Amino acid sequence: MGILPWRGRDVIDPRDFTREDLEILFEEADKMRRQLSSGRVTRTLEGKIIATAFFEPSTRTRLSFEAAAKRLGADVIGFSAEEATSVAKGESFVDTIRMLDGYADLIVIRHKYEGAAALAAEVARVPVINGGDGSQHHPTQAMLDLYTVRELFGSVDGLNYLIVGDLKYARTVASLLRALSLFKPASVMLSAPPQLQLRDEVRRDVESRGLRLEYVKLEEGLSRADVIYVTRIQRERFPDPQEYEKVRGSYRITRRLLEAYAKGSAKVLHPLPRVDELAADVDSTSYQAYFLQASLGVPLRMALLNLILGGEAS
Amino acid sequence: MGILPWRGRDVIDPRDFTREDLEILFEEADKMRRQLSSGRVTRTLEGKIIATAFFEPSTRTRLSFEAAAKRLGADVIGFSAEEATSVAKGESFVDTIRMLDGYADLIVIRHKYEGAAALAAEVARVPVINGGDGSQHHPTQAMLDLYTVRELFGSVDGLNYLIVGDLKYARTVASLLRALSLFKPASVMLSAPPQLQLRDEVRRDVESRGLRLEYVKLEEGLSRADVIYVTRIQRERFPDPQEYEKVRGSYRITRRLLEAYAKGSAKVLHPLPRVDELAADVDSTSYQAYFLQASLGVPLRMALLNLILGGEAS
Amino acid sequence: MGILPWRGRDVIDPRDFTREDLEILFEEADKMRRQLSSGRVTRTLEGKIIATAFFEPSTRTRLSFEAAAKRLGADVIGFSAEEATSVAKGESFVDTIRMLDGYADLIVIRHKYEGAAALAAEVARVPVINGGDGSQHHPTQAMLDLYTVRELFGSVDGLNYLIVGDLKYARTVASLLRALSLFKPASVMLSAPPQLQLRDEVRRDVESRGLRLEYVKLEEGLSRADVIYVTRIQRERFPDPQEYEKVRGSYRITRRLLEAYAKGSAKVLHPLPRVDELAADVDSTSYQAYFLQASLGVPLRMALLNLILGGEAS
Repeated sequence: MGILPWRGRDVIDPRDFTREDLEILFEEADKMRRQLSSGRVTRTLEGKIIATAFFEPSTRTRLSFEAAAKRLGADVIGFSAEEATSVAKGESFVDTIRMLDGYADLIVIRHKYEGAAALAAEVARVPVINGGDGSQHHPTQAMLDLYTVRELFGSVDGLNYLIVGDLKYARTVASLLRALSLFKPASVMLSAPPQLQLRDEVRRDVESRGLRLEYVKLEEGLSRADVIYVTRIQRERFPDPQEYEKVRGSYRITRRLLEAYAKGSAKVLHPLPRVDELAADVDSTSYQAYFLQASLGVPLRMALLNLILGGEAS
Repeated sequence: MGILPWRGRDVIDPRDFTREDLEILFEEADKMRRQLSSGRVTRTLEGKIIATAFFEPSTRTRLSFEAAAKRLGADVIGFSAEEATSVAKGESFVDTIRMLDGYADLIVIRHKYEGAAALAAEVARVPVINGGDGSQHHPTQAMLDLYTVRELFGSVDGLNYLIVGDLKYARTVASLLRALSLFKPASVMLSAPPQLQLRDEVRRDVESRGLRLEYVKLEEGLSRADVIYVTRIQRERFPDPQEYEKVRGSYRITRRLLEAYAKGSAKVLHPLPRVDELAADVDSTSYQAYFLQASLGVPLRMALLNLILGGEAS
Repeated sequence: MGILPWRGRDVIDPRDFTREDLEILFEEADKMRRQLSSGRVTRTLEGKIIATAFFEPSTRTRLSFEAAAKRLGADVIGFSAEEATSVAKGESFVDTIRMLDGYADLIVIRHKYEGAAALAAEVARVPVINGGDGSQHHPTQAMLDLYTVRELFGSVDGLNYLIVGDLKYARTVASLLRALSLFKPASVMLSAPPQLQLRDEVRRDVESRGLRLEYVKLEEGLSRADVIYVTRIQRERFPDPQEYEKVRGSYRITRRLLEAYAKGSAKVLHPLPRVDELAADVDSTSYQAYFLQASLGVPLRMALLNLILGGEAS
């Protein structure tokens, strides 16, 4: 597995990356943060246009990419999910991507269907970044997750990870596990309601890549974990709303629970948005790391855009 | 009441400002207008990002803030009301504000509920500007109103003001009265249908701040006024649509009415949009000042952004 | 018919332009393409604001104008059709245009009703570009069409044109015929289902301007044409959905059809989006020129903006 250069690269699936790729990315993100905090204006991507093709709603991912692009002097065109329904009056997905390919220097895509980003990358001549497609891929979120862990603990290796929640539909989970398989975690524990267990295909895939998964009770996981990764139940992916109602509220990480079981040094991550599964009373504890995680989304995505579009770091 | 510096300041409630604050603002707006008319490109806010969080529709306020930001070289991210419904999949308002706080240098917020802007300012580390919340606050509109009066008459003091229309639900009225209480108007007259009278809490508040309100018949008000401030009936804030139908069309400022009663030097202001309450035949009269008022929205908001974000005036 | 300068000009109706106007435009577009391909950053319109007022959905036209503006360093404000429904709470079209006139340096408008762009141009002091209104005008698409022909064949003159499809509702057809009447085509052939024939007023207008139209069977047209211009049936303009169902699929340009009848040197153009009328199997043939056409939309619109706003070509 050689190292591809970042320049011109598509970002579709975390499995396309090596540990070295991610380390280069994390160092670039460090640079971006230093630039942001210095207050110096950075226009390394001036004149570039980023297209955001969001066929599915995602304020958070969309705005963090937009902020990242604009912090580097690039401009943004595109559409949000609310506009996507009327995009181009029934034309094919492929024609829509070709249009953006003609207008922009890079396309960020979000789509309900798995494979949409890979198909877009095949059609487009410009680089494509997967902003989340289907229920398996959200590579830039996984990169952000690990970058946050590195920031918190100095390294991604040697830590105990507990992943709690909707392991079935949350694409952040599948992507995070795949990204973790590039590193050397001490342990990877999973805790989920019976209906929301990890899909077999994901489990087999990450195990074949060397990741050993442990299924634990929540309390045990909390007591051993350094990183507690909580996910929202993906209501919008449930085929049957009644099924959602059955599992809704089946887990909830609270301050009380953390203080009862977790190590003092443990940190809670969450890709956000959260609904009920993570109580607001955790916000003011030392466990809380999800606001840091969210705020690192912009420099991490600045790093991605800058590496891919070849902006000279100043 | 001391003078706070503008830099880093929130703009939530007109009552937070002194007369001196507004005079500094108006002078900055004068500067901005000179720059705009000189055709020189101003990029004092290059590298800054303004987030527009519009939970309630407002094309006019949103676009004037966007234009103001971009005229200064800043970039804009955000969402309009149409997108807000799906913002972040049911996450709390506070989490949404925290997200924007991590992405932007300043947040402009518009919300249906009173207090939303103040809450946002409490949560966010970056400055927050209230682009209108609930039925009482729309501070930047009030600033614009007074800036327009100053432009038309040379001063805000010593003039007779008539405020006509929906005094109950129009937040521009509550904000304007509060802003006027910082100055020395010769008189402040109110004329409204019985169902749309000023709320007691607003009346008591501005009276306690030294403003004497007179309740007048429309014709009397018109005959005495220098500034005739007309407002739209706020259909969207009526709890009961039938109530709206009852008052709809209960007042209407026309050319004929103005020519019959108003002083030749009087000027009509309106925060716009207008529906039926202000006839199009006023547009071509010397009374019309609402298009000037609208066009001053951009330099006034440029001044606000520039003062708050500390752009060096060039 | 003298030559008006481009600077400050409205673009409402192709009939307002001379052949010389279009030749100046095409040369400017050539310049823009050279700049784009050189990778040099062009900011001739830095500090300018373009307003996009899209009252009717059009991702393609909207995004190509946005990309064009941003490639020149200009900024964009505006609204898409999804937001337009709540624009300014029921205010008149004219007031909305006045608002944008106060905020921007140029307005691009798209509207369902014919005459909307002309009305906007009358109200606004800044230049207005018609991004399509009603079923007759879409001047920038016609300019793009002819620019593409010039690129493909070296000239617009002396060629045989076949226009296939919805000649009744497609505004691109009316605009293209009017633009063609400024040049010297060898022939202009039309082929359409009986229900979708050219409207009498358009036919009479372009014939009075010297264009001779031939009505041909599709096969004959294909066998003689150099330029095969295919249009989508404008479903959204059919007063009666049942009427649409009757003509849907009444023509379809396929690879097989082209290989059976068309000259080897013929080129297929289509304003896009396409639905069923142009088969995907044409994409990989030498006939296909619609992706080139689409990609020229950005430099052509850059040229328009730059000429009208007086950006110095660098």
